[in-house]
Amino acid sequence: MEYTREQLIEIVSGQMPAKRWKHVEGVMETAVILAERFGGDKEKADLAALLHDLAKFWPVERQEAMIRDNGLNPELLEHDKQLMHAEIGAFVAQRDYGIEDPEVLDAVRYHTSGRVGMTKLDKIVCLADYIEPGREFPGVERIRDLAEHSLEEALVAGFDSTISFLLEKGKVIFPLTVLSRNGLIQEIKGSKQ
Amino acid sequence: MEYTREQLIEIVSGQMPAKRWKHVEGVMETAVILAERFGGDKEKADLAALLHDLAKFWPVERQEAMIRDNGLNPELLEHDKQLMHAEIGAFVAQRDYGIEDPEVLDAVRYHTSGRVGMTKLDKIVCLADYIEPGREFPGVERIRDLAEHSLEEALVAGFDSTISFLLEKGKVIFPLTVLSRNGLIQEIKGSKQ
Repeated sequence: MEYTREQLIEIVSGQMPAKRWKHVEGVMETAVILAERFGGDKEKADLAALLHDLAKFWPVERQEAMIRDNGLNPELLEHDKQLMHAEIGAFVAQRDYGIEDPEVLDAVRYHTSGRVGMTKLDKIVCLADYIEPGREFPGVERIRDLAEHSLEEALVAGFDSTISFLLEKGKVIFPLTVLSRNGLIQEIKGSKQ
Repeated sequence: MEYTREQLIEIVSGQMPAKRWKHVEGVMETAVILAERFGGDKEKADLAALLHDLAKFWPVERQEAMIRDNGLNPELLEHDKQLMHAEIGAFVAQRDYGIEDPEVLDAVRYHTSGRVGMTKLDKIVCLADYIEPGREFPGVERIRDLAEHSLEEALVAGFDSTISFLLEKGKVIFPLTVLSRNGLIQEIKGSKQ
């Protein structure tokens, strides 16, 4: 890595309002707790959480240009603007900050949508993003309860809350989120057989 | 067509309980009303509605064997059992009952899941299946109200009710249903621009 953790904290926190940085600190803290609880890699969880929202507060036009100019997933331009920053975060972390660990980059890339066959690190970062202490939305307490014993059950409940929200708002649903949820349900079924 | 409408009614109604046949009659009646309302083909709407559930009450094992033995979409074996009968219905209507009209066959094939780029006939049959007079489920009145002026808005509300139900039950969501719903939302947006 070209930068120390402290330097990365400085770089990332400088690209967002203080309130959002507090959220990132909450995700870092929660991701490390989840890694401890479920036998994940604490250092990678901390690093992926630190990086996950680095492009979140970039202007939408800058994010769209980034997707177009660098051949990133063009499907992201068709969906909710909230999805672009995850892919861009992984791209920038690798290109500009020298992060090479594919597990960490994937956990950043899929922290909003999830993906089919999520790794333990993907699940930890995605779930930490739903339940960090600053989060308040209908159903978050139930997700926190589930997170006491199952990464997968908690994450299904997290995706359920996202999909319900999009249904209520009449917004399109990102297909990968549905595939991620379906994959987790199959995983839970498999583990109970 | 090798069979008359009366013969098809006899064949199809003989493959299901009387109560389900009453549902099919409701879908036929509603599909014709919707075709009138939205400028669709009434005869095709009637025929597709008549055929849409022909395999609905076949034993699941027979449905699964049908999918496997005839090279039908294997993805259907991975999802809710309720999805198989639509694809089988289209296959049997063509092979055994001499229905050759691709529009009618597609309306049967996609009446449960929908598809990206639904035709008017697809929409009519799928929506009629949600709102025929015998249907009672939370939200059906709202879908009937929307169906007074928009096929697409009513159908989005129909898919919303299906997806909400699957979320509540912790069941997997068929990805094509989400893609169908997203496609309809884009269509509605496009028509308002």
